[in-house]
Amino acid sequence: MADQKKMVEDITSMEVDFAKWYTDICKKAELVEYTSVKGCMVIRPYGYAIWENIQRILDAKFKELGHENVCMPMFIPESLLQKEKDHVEGFAPEVAWVTHGGAEKLEERLCVRPTSETLFCEHYANIVHSHRDLPKLYNQWVSVVRWEKTTRPFLRSREFLWQEGHTIHATAEEAVAETEQMLNVYADFCEQHLQMPVVKGQKTESDKFAGAVSTYAIEALMHDGKALQAGTSHYFGDGFAKAFDIQYQSKENKLEYPHQTSWGVTTRLIGAIIMTHGDDNGLVLPPDVAPIQVVIIPVAQHKEGVLEKAYALRDQLSASFRVKVDDSDQSPGWKYSEYEMKGVPVRLEIGPRDIEANQCVLVTRHNREKTVVSLDNLADSVAEKISEVKQGIWEKALENRTRRTYKCTTMDEIKSVLAEKGDGFVHAMWCGDEACEDKVKEETGVGSRCIPFEQEQISDKCVCCGKPAKCMVLWGNAY
Amino acid sequence: MADQKKMVEDITSMEVDFAKWYTDICKKAELVEYTSVKGCMVIRPYGYAIWENIQRILDAKFKELGHENVCMPMFIPESLLQKEKDHVEGFAPEVAWVTHGGAEKLEERLCVRPTSETLFCEHYANIVHSHRDLPKLYNQWVSVVRWEKTTRPFLRSREFLWQEGHTIHATAEEAVAETEQMLNVYADFCEQHLQMPVVKGQKTESDKFAGAVSTYAIEALMHDGKALQAGTSHYFGDGFAKAFDIQYQSKENKLEYPHQTSWGVTTRLIGAIIMTHGDDNGLVLPPDVAPIQVVIIPVAQHKEGVLEKAYALRDQLSASFRVKVDDSDQSPGWKYSEYEMKGVPVRLEIGPRDIEANQCVLVTRHNREKTVVSLDNLADSVAEKISEVKQGIWEKALENRTRRTYKCTTMDEIKSVLAEKGDGFVHAMWCGDEACEDKVKEETGVGSRCIPFEQEQISDKCVCCGKPAKCMVLWGNAY
Repeated sequence: MADQKKMVEDITSMEVDFAKWYTDICKKAELVEYTSVKGCMVIRPYGYAIWENIQRILDAKFKELGHENVCMPMFIPESLLQKEKDHVEGFAPEVAWVTHGGAEKLEERLCVRPTSETLFCEHYANIVHSHRDLPKLYNQWVSVVRWEKTTRPFLRSREFLWQEGHTIHATAEEAVAETEQMLNVYADFCEQHLQMPVVKGQKTESDKFAGAVSTYAIEALMHDGKALQAGTSHYFGDGFAKAFDIQYQSKENKLEYPHQTSWGVTTRLIGAIIMTHGDDNGLVLPPDVAPIQVVIIPVAQHKEGVLEKAYALRDQLSASFRVKVDDSDQSPGWKYSEYEMKGVPVRLEIGPRDIEANQCVLVTRHNREKTVVSLDNLADSVAEKISEVKQGIWEKALENRTRRTYKCTTMDEIKSVLAEKGDGFVHAMWCGDEACEDKVKEETGVGSRCIPFEQEQISDKCVCCGKPAKCMVLWGNAY
Repeated sequence: MADQKKMVEDITSMEVDFAKWYTDICKKAELVEYTSVKGCMVIRPYGYAIWENIQRILDAKFKELGHENVCMPMFIPESLLQKEKDHVEGFAPEVAWVTHGGAEKLEERLCVRPTSETLFCEHYANIVHSHRDLPKLYNQWVSVVRWEKTTRPFLRSREFLWQEGHTIHATAEEAVAETEQMLNVYADFCEQHLQMPVVKGQKTESDKFAGAVSTYAIEALMHDGKALQAGTSHYFGDGFAKAFDIQYQSKENKLEYPHQTSWGVTTRLIGAIIMTHGDDNGLVLPPDVAPIQVVIIPVAQHKEGVLEKAYALRDQLSASFRVKVDDSDQSPGWKYSEYEMKGVPVRLEIGPRDIEANQCVLVTRHNREKTVVSLDNLADSVAEKISEVKQGIWEKALENRTRRTYKCTTMDEIKSVLAEKGDGFVHAMWCGDEACEDKVKEETGVGSRCIPFEQEQISDKCVCCGKPAKCMVLWGNAY
């Protein structure tokens, strides 16, 4: 127990300092390590394995829906970036510029891609000529670079990993349907695989992607009440097509501009997992993306037959789960803490007495509940525990969001509820005027996160100016 | 047939112009497309799917051997790159430099990684302290950048995709064993999954990786007789550990320097596949990495029941193979050419008469052999054809290499055999002197590819100077 205590003391409590708690987990659970490259990090094996599981599930879904993976260059010539006016204005201030190749100065500087719309557009202009060439449903898994001033592991770093889908369609209707479909894919992924409830909605004009007609987003609420944008899906109309001169011959033999979308999720999702489910003992991982789903801890492992039994159980369970035996020479107590820190959903303890009684102990990470189960039908018992973890962390996250969602009809109400109950999602009506959006942010601290698809008529007046309201907005203080 | 003829005419014959034939295939098989980023390319869905299959097989093998994936930053600060003297000398002349972030000039320039030894070393210095921390067996799948002057799709491009394994071990013996093991993994992969025979050997001093004690490589022979380095594995000794101050406490409580390795294969492998197996009708893909293993072409598809049967066969075969039905409105002849161009190993033709007779036609891509088979046990018949393709393309590649491997004992012999029979692998003895290595290259055109592990005592004298020979070298004109 001394060992266990020592480990636990190493993390800052989330109540004391949430930001410090977060970075402590990133380090202690061995998700990331800092480097001498400012604002960039090493994603360590345990962190990267979470990303691989996210990739595996999403990639299969993308392909099931007809998407194909490609790989574009990581560089964008300055002249290419400048072809779409809004787009370059949005991204140019935060790109990294390559100016030299070896000892030679380049004729034209290249930026390291902050996003790849311009490259996809150039490619589509080359390969799309006829209605037969449409749609193209492409995606790539790469890293991108944005020269951020302040950075935090997973949440905001100068380089981050993501997937970026880029599709091109004959009609606006098809492109809009794709934009919505992919937002739903992200929302379902977050809710079903990460047990993270999200709000689906549309970004306001001031907050949409540079060059988009409309941006859809999913917004999650972290344990501390701050909002986190977990995925976005953009509809471009034919703006990029016109800027890049992409045209196709329709069935009626007319030249038409196609319609485009793009959509992405990033390694931010790992930050969202930490802040949605983690606690003062460390990470709590959703089973579907946990690198280890069941950790087997042999008790009194020097005694005859214990390790053998542990290995046998691993081999048996490996058909259905990602399983690890920790047979290192650390104490069981140290190991309990270690895998709590790493957020392993289910711990299986097995010692000489258990073996004699044909049983073992299962402990679920999120609530530390212990159950003694028979070794007969063990896979079923573990599956049941995994389900309990999913259900348990989902309910806890949903409860946090419900408790921290406030309906407000006046500015004063927003201020007082935030002061009293802390950060959260504020539901309040809006007239659609950007000046009001800015004023809410300025006076109350919460900015518009999105206009939820699921609307509620809280009042008929804008929370700020009192003029007729157009819609309900989800407001929050965001990561 | 008119359509088919038209397609085939579009590729340059390999006998007429091998280089043109190669780039024709890259374009016509839709593997890559050029971009406005000089020396960089788009890897299109069909090309990228080949890479995904290569990744899937290799990644599983790496993990089976205990390796874990990580992700390092794509940037390296100039001061970090300079820490190991040989390494920076080797790479600095060909890196891309980032000098600005947004509008601001960086205090220190960053290069885009040409390879990541320096980043891994910095990380190892942070996380390796005790013998308990060793070994670390890491790998990453990323892209790297080298500012090449002349570029060709897959073979040499400014940005290319690869995996780079980086491991660190307590002892030199372990690190050497890892270096050898990974070379064997590459060789087995090339031979068993790509049906590409390779020669395993060690690079000469002048040709080894910048900073390595020794570099092992696998060398393949392309259809035109030129050599292609298909993978490398480097042993670093403790040179990098000393340069980066990585030390660990041994079991005996002494501070020791660990020993390191790195190893990699790249998207070059796709170039190697094209030039090993391709022919004048296009690509010929090894079944294990072919995006489509069986293409089903319905004949007279407008007739009742034909398309339904084609879909039913697809659904049946999909349990064991990657299958596609081409139900587009192109003619069967056009489709035959299209999938020959794309190198699909097995074509299945099914028309009304076949259905009536409970049969179909299977055509193997590499030899265009047609077999009529029963629809009963179809999966077995297809599996047999896939085996035939593997065997057939392996034998053809091996035959090409055997025919083009020449044993020579004098410089004149090298010159005359190359003049008479064309490019190929030359086996000739060497004294170990770099001057002779250079002279052979200068006078005959073939450079040293490697010192094969499998040695043969062709003579006891150096082919160049006549002094006592140290070893047999494999010489060739390389891509």
